[in-house]
Amino acid sequence: MDSREFRRRGKEMVDYIADYLDGIEGRPVYPDVEPGYLRPLIPATAPQEPETYEDIIKDIEKIIMPGAASPACTELETVMMDWLGKMLELPEAFLAGRAGEGGGVIQGSASEATLVALLAARTKVIRQLQAASPEFTQAAIMEKLVAYTSDQAHSSVERAGLIGGIKLKAVPSDGNFSMRASALQEALERDKAAGLIPFFVVATLGTTSCCSFDNLLEVGPICNQEGVWLHIDAAYAGSAFICPEFRYLLNGVEFADSFNFNPHKWLLVNFDCSAMWVKRRTDLTGAFNMDPVYLKHSHQDSGFITDYRHWQIPLGRRFRSLKMWFVFRMYGVKGLQAYIRKHVELSHEFESLVRQDPRFEICTEVILGLVCFRLKGSNELNETLLQRINSAKKIHLVPCRLRDKFVLRFAVCARTVESAHVQLAWEHISDLASSVLRAERE
Amino acid sequence: MDSREFRRRGKEMVDYIADYLDGIEGRPVYPDVEPGYLRPLIPATAPQEPETYEDIIKDIEKIIMPGAASPACTELETVMMDWLGKMLELPEAFLAGRAGEGGGVIQGSASEATLVALLAARTKVIRQLQAASPEFTQAAIMEKLVAYTSDQAHSSVERAGLIGGIKLKAVPSDGNFSMRASALQEALERDKAAGLIPFFVVATLGTTSCCSFDNLLEVGPICNQEGVWLHIDAAYAGSAFICPEFRYLLNGVEFADSFNFNPHKWLLVNFDCSAMWVKRRTDLTGAFNMDPVYLKHSHQDSGFITDYRHWQIPLGRRFRSLKMWFVFRMYGVKGLQAYIRKHVELSHEFESLVRQDPRFEICTEVILGLVCFRLKGSNELNETLLQRINSAKKIHLVPCRLRDKFVLRFAVCARTVESAHVQLAWEHISDLASSVLRAERE
Repeated sequence: MDSREFRRRGKEMVDYIADYLDGIEGRPVYPDVEPGYLRPLIPATAPQEPETYEDIIKDIEKIIMPGAASPACTELETVMMDWLGKMLELPEAFLAGRAGEGGGVIQGSASEATLVALLAARTKVIRQLQAASPEFTQAAIMEKLVAYTSDQAHSSVERAGLIGGIKLKAVPSDGNFSMRASALQEALERDKAAGLIPFFVVATLGTTSCCSFDNLLEVGPICNQEGVWLHIDAAYAGSAFICPEFRYLLNGVEFADSFNFNPHKWLLVNFDCSAMWVKRRTDLTGAFNMDPVYLKHSHQDSGFITDYRHWQIPLGRRFRSLKMWFVFRMYGVKGLQAYIRKHVELSHEFESLVRQDPRFEICTEVILGLVCFRLKGSNELNETLLQRINSAKKIHLVPCRLRDKFVLRFAVCARTVESAHVQLAWEHISDLASSVLRAERE
Repeated sequence: MDSREFRRRGKEMVDYIADYLDGIEGRPVYPDVEPGYLRPLIPATAPQEPETYEDIIKDIEKIIMPGAASPACTELETVMMDWLGKMLELPEAFLAGRAGEGGGVIQGSASEATLVALLAARTKVIRQLQAASPEFTQAAIMEKLVAYTSDQAHSSVERAGLIGGIKLKAVPSDGNFSMRASALQEALERDKAAGLIPFFVVATLGTTSCCSFDNLLEVGPICNQEGVWLHIDAAYAGSAFICPEFRYLLNGVEFADSFNFNPHKWLLVNFDCSAMWVKRRTDLTGAFNMDPVYLKHSHQDSGFITDYRHWQIPLGRRFRSLKMWFVFRMYGVKGLQAYIRKHVELSHEFESLVRQDPRFEICTEVILGLVCFRLKGSNELNETLLQRINSAKKIHLVPCRLRDKFVLRFAVCARTVESAHVQLAWEHISDLASSVLRAERE
């Protein structure tokens, strides 16, 4: 949608809202639909080609308004999460479908998804152990529980461990910053020998620092074998898996119990929208289910409906699946794939500019939209360069530390980025590098 | 703002956004302001009288845009939470000001606020006990920790206990559904005698079921004396405290460590916006602080700025304080007070209609916008009446159970509600009651 259409459609939407409020007393106070009404009204998969805005907005009045906020908000979310799951070719077990045991939910952030998964895994293991040995107290079990993640994982994983009140251990990653079988197995064996109880592993696809990938095909089978919950955090990289050529990066997801990525990061859905799937929804609902009278409703026990309040930390929910519905239909799967591909191409364009300059080095393989690079030389030199880049305020880079190296990160992520921006950015970095290196020699 | 002005301003806003995106390359990539830039540009308190939309929107370009998303998003939130705190006459200790130790943060829901408070309290007591007895493990302490809330508290409190992995006990409320000193003291003494460690109390102001109020002036001093964290959940009722005549309901807040209510419930701020204050911000930041390189910034250690990511469960944040800024200025404090007063008057109007009908009884004192009422008679009779009311879909009521009684709840909460709506609703309820009673006699 270009600026001209945005102005037109935006103003139509303002009128739509005003008309809605002006005429609200003519609408029923409670929807006149049965649970499950929405799925048959909507295709089973996202469209490949873009649809027109007109077609989408017509469906709002036709499909959403009769279902009001509830159950439309819940049911559209379930169907959109199925659409997105299919776009990623997630195993069937993660989809809700009409009678699936799994399904998806929109969380606010990957941090919340990790926490929810950890809490569900914690409840599950406590119940299992108490069923086997009723004399085991919750606290006695929690004292022995251990979760694992790579030393490259996002800080939110450690934070989830802190909140959940359980030990979290960092598994050393390999030379490519990837968690591998041997390191994980070693950690598990050592802890089991010490009487601890491994229960939860978070694997990362596309780490924050350098977009490295844990080895799911190695790590997954170990988790399954040990009866340990495997959660996958693909917050950034997940969007790329809608492209067949990047789908291999998700191989091994079939071993996972839960999987999460953020469409608000790289799939054109506005913040916030973090997509989380589980194989067994009862793992979540069993962990959090509380049913006071004022939250009861007549469909409670039908087994046919989804109560997302049991799937998340907050009670209240926003209608975030509308954003997904609009974006998936306005772009079509092909449009979204083209968007991802363009970003990856631009990051490779930047990579090749860096590689052509012998003063610089590329620090990790460029797989998606992130390029980790640095001046050959000391950390101080690179810190000076970064400081010069960011204080010039033409572009903005966020650094990372890889082992003992201070590294610059060039992230292609803006909606409107073009080759010209990449070229300009590189010229600018290159000029500042010259100036920094000149100053160093003097 | 009426419908005509909404249409005009909404369309102007669409153009503003489109213009912004069209001209985005002309804007700096990074703000050119120093931490703390915003507070001096904004009055120290909310305006008493409404301001014009023009004045507010001018401030967006002048005050917000130079500070971009960060730090404007954080700094406006801190100042808005101070504005709102002052509207409620919160004790100075809860305000951030320029150098305060307390301050406010916007959470997504009251559930999250309760959880964050519980986790901060848990961390604090664990550290205190471990400092005194280093041999005490975290799990050994957690096994003994007990939190308390009234048997009328919202289910999210129990859920917070579940997530935090600690025991939560329900304190029996008195005849007015209020938690009192004697019941709390008894629970504390019994548990301490059994070797348990009370560490957290949640008091509710305006319970979900019947809008009852825990007795803060009794419960508060006990918590302080016992060194137990007191959190106040005033999710619904909190908005009313901006009116001097309802401020007495908040007396005793000075004993609390944290306080929360939802402006999205009754203060015209769109969902979500849950306002939480703490007396010592270090209690929160100490509980969650994690600082990886990619989240470091040059002002990290200045002590001058606020990192709200340490105050909440998610990492990412939305710019929700803009909603508060617009609403507080468009209505002015007087306009917001008038809004609350109107709702309370209308609930009393409904109350008097119920009282004039000898078939009905009022179940609890009507203090704010909620009227708990029922037909004199069996629960079955009232369940039938509710079922008739809700299936007619002219109005919608959510029931509750008070002790052994099934009770209907009439909640005045819509933005545009008038006396005519209340009268119509009562006529409708009264007609259905006649029909239900007639059927019963036959």
